[in-house]
Amino acid sequence: MTTYDIALIGFGGVNRTLAELVATRGDELSRELGFGLRVVAITDLRLGSLVRDGGIDMDMALRINPADETFAAHGGSADPDNERVIRTCAADIICEATFTNPATGEPAASHVRWALEAGKSVCTTNKGPVALHGAELTGLAQRNGLHFEFEGAVMSGTPVIRFARQLFPGLNLNGFEGILNGTSNYVLGRMEEGLGFEESVREAQQRGYAEADPTADIDGHDVQLKVLIMANELLGAGLRLADVQRQGISALTPGDLSRAKNEGRRWKLVGSARRNPDGTVSASVAPAALPLDHGLAGVSRANNAVSFNTDLLGPVTVSGPGAGRVETAYALLSDIIAMHGARNQVAADA
Amino acid sequence: MTTYDIALIGFGGVNRTLAELVATRGDELSRELGFGLRVVAITDLRLGSLVRDGGIDMDMALRINPADETFAAHGGSADPDNERVIRTCAADIICEATFTNPATGEPAASHVRWALEAGKSVCTTNKGPVALHGAELTGLAQRNGLHFEFEGAVMSGTPVIRFARQLFPGLNLNGFEGILNGTSNYVLGRMEEGLGFEESVREAQQRGYAEADPTADIDGHDVQLKVLIMANELLGAGLRLADVQRQGISALTPGDLSRAKNEGRRWKLVGSARRNPDGTVSASVAPAALPLDHGLAGVSRANNAVSFNTDLLGPVTVSGPGAGRVETAYALLSDIIAMHGARNQVAADA
Repeated sequence: MTTYDIALIGFGGVNRTLAELVATRGDELSRELGFGLRVVAITDLRLGSLVRDGGIDMDMALRINPADETFAAHGGSADPDNERVIRTCAADIICEATFTNPATGEPAASHVRWALEAGKSVCTTNKGPVALHGAELTGLAQRNGLHFEFEGAVMSGTPVIRFARQLFPGLNLNGFEGILNGTSNYVLGRMEEGLGFEESVREAQQRGYAEADPTADIDGHDVQLKVLIMANELLGAGLRLADVQRQGISALTPGDLSRAKNEGRRWKLVGSARRNPDGTVSASVAPAALPLDHGLAGVSRANNAVSFNTDLLGPVTVSGPGAGRVETAYALLSDIIAMHGARNQVAADA
Repeated sequence: MTTYDIALIGFGGVNRTLAELVATRGDELSRELGFGLRVVAITDLRLGSLVRDGGIDMDMALRINPADETFAAHGGSADPDNERVIRTCAADIICEATFTNPATGEPAASHVRWALEAGKSVCTTNKGPVALHGAELTGLAQRNGLHFEFEGAVMSGTPVIRFARQLFPGLNLNGFEGILNGTSNYVLGRMEEGLGFEESVREAQQRGYAEADPTADIDGHDVQLKVLIMANELLGAGLRLADVQRQGISALTPGDLSRAKNEGRRWKLVGSARRNPDGTVSASVAPAALPLDHGLAGVSRANNAVSFNTDLLGPVTVSGPGAGRVETAYALLSDIIAMHGARNQVAADA
């Protein structure tokens, strides 16, 4: 059976959960999927780096508390040294899940680039590299015969990119509309129930949906990146970030929401893109008062959804979690599974 | 390029639309999909049968009006002669879309069986053969190295079976809940808006959602078959029809619906199955007053949806059309595309 050696870049919640999945369900997964996984390198801002060509003892790695020690106490280094590890370790696949600045895509974009230059396939949960450097990185992967997968960058483990790519063969995809940010959706839902804006944001933070600084969620920056990814990857739009019009929800008042409710409508922050008659693609993020029978109006709490507009089926919608540690770790696993499937497909076409 | 020869069994709305798709978009589809399609046989209760090993002139076939003439006037026969055509024609794939009795699965089940016995793969849009004879027919296909596909039997072209089979690798599927009948969902929606039961059913009939005899929709028989298909095919339940508890919507009153509305709930006819701790599967069809933040509460009008309960992602929902001529014809096309993909996969594994 094939075993893929993987490197975990960033050992926070997501890659740690992936490591736990491999440790606890590895045998079950191997039987189902036909391949095994072995972690041969880990880097982390706080823990440093550890490289073991023969496989890292995952019980040990998962037990380390970054508050107490680093990998230096376990034969590694206190220095994450991402570039050297990514370029030189024995991994077939780099699992990239670092804390990354969404405005620049760094350091994730460099991690992806180094990996692809060094002949390693990459899966990432970071939006930045895909949204801001998608064409460059996808091209680099293709030229080098490698895979660059990023399902987790849009709706965590809910398979929306793969849904549109794999399950619409023979259909024309004319656009999409999505609810792509759980925090803003939660806030709008609570405001509709009468809570004020500030209070709703605070509640979202208490429940762990919103970051300490909720600006990216509330002002639509997070959705803008996700729309850009889907517009470029699924519609071949060739857009840049500034091409995606962006408006957040902070101008909406509880009065707006209750008025809409009385009219049988519901405000949602909608990220959308559509193919124009001339072939170009227009994309935007903006609040919209949807009629209650709209496919996205019923997406409540922190859930996410994307409605794909197809020629033969009309709108087809996928909804599910848009965030979460386990959900996002599963996205990386699903990316690796997709690479394995594509490898078999290439063997078939040869 | 591979060309698949296909036979259209039943030349009503669905297969006629498939023929139109092949005729008008065949070249575009070939470029995208890497294979061509050629219709070499058609049978129909009213039109009779026509077999042409070199390919049928589809313009001619689509122009024939069954009120005026049969295939006998075009070198064929007024007798559909399904068994002979299915067993002896040159088709690689049988596209089965006849008017079939859902209680017995006939004549579709026989059509599928004859095809698989004769070495031909089959796609069907009929629920009966899959729900009532799924294990037998799937086993027959496997033993003969053939494909038996039936995406259109559950939600027309909305890919729910393929979604669960292809996009949840590495996940455990513990059950599902679905809104699987557009007529009953439309009727419940109109009753919530204050219309009476009879009036709502009449309106559904006028809009073309409900059959002249809406019993199968209203009493849950239609949903029962779809639940049985998904429980057996996706959960390996091994259930028979009588194992799926069934209750329809005819006992619900407008008062029930408005009372639920005031309590923030909405009545839906829900088909569901869940895996029990002992590994068995329980399945049922019954009305349920769902809270408005339930993933299925927002599925309105004649739309359908299935919410899959997974271990790592929680509920993931697909919604879209559950009926329609074009939508169901696309289901057959998607089945053929899946067969082509599987053929390549087999070549890879060899």
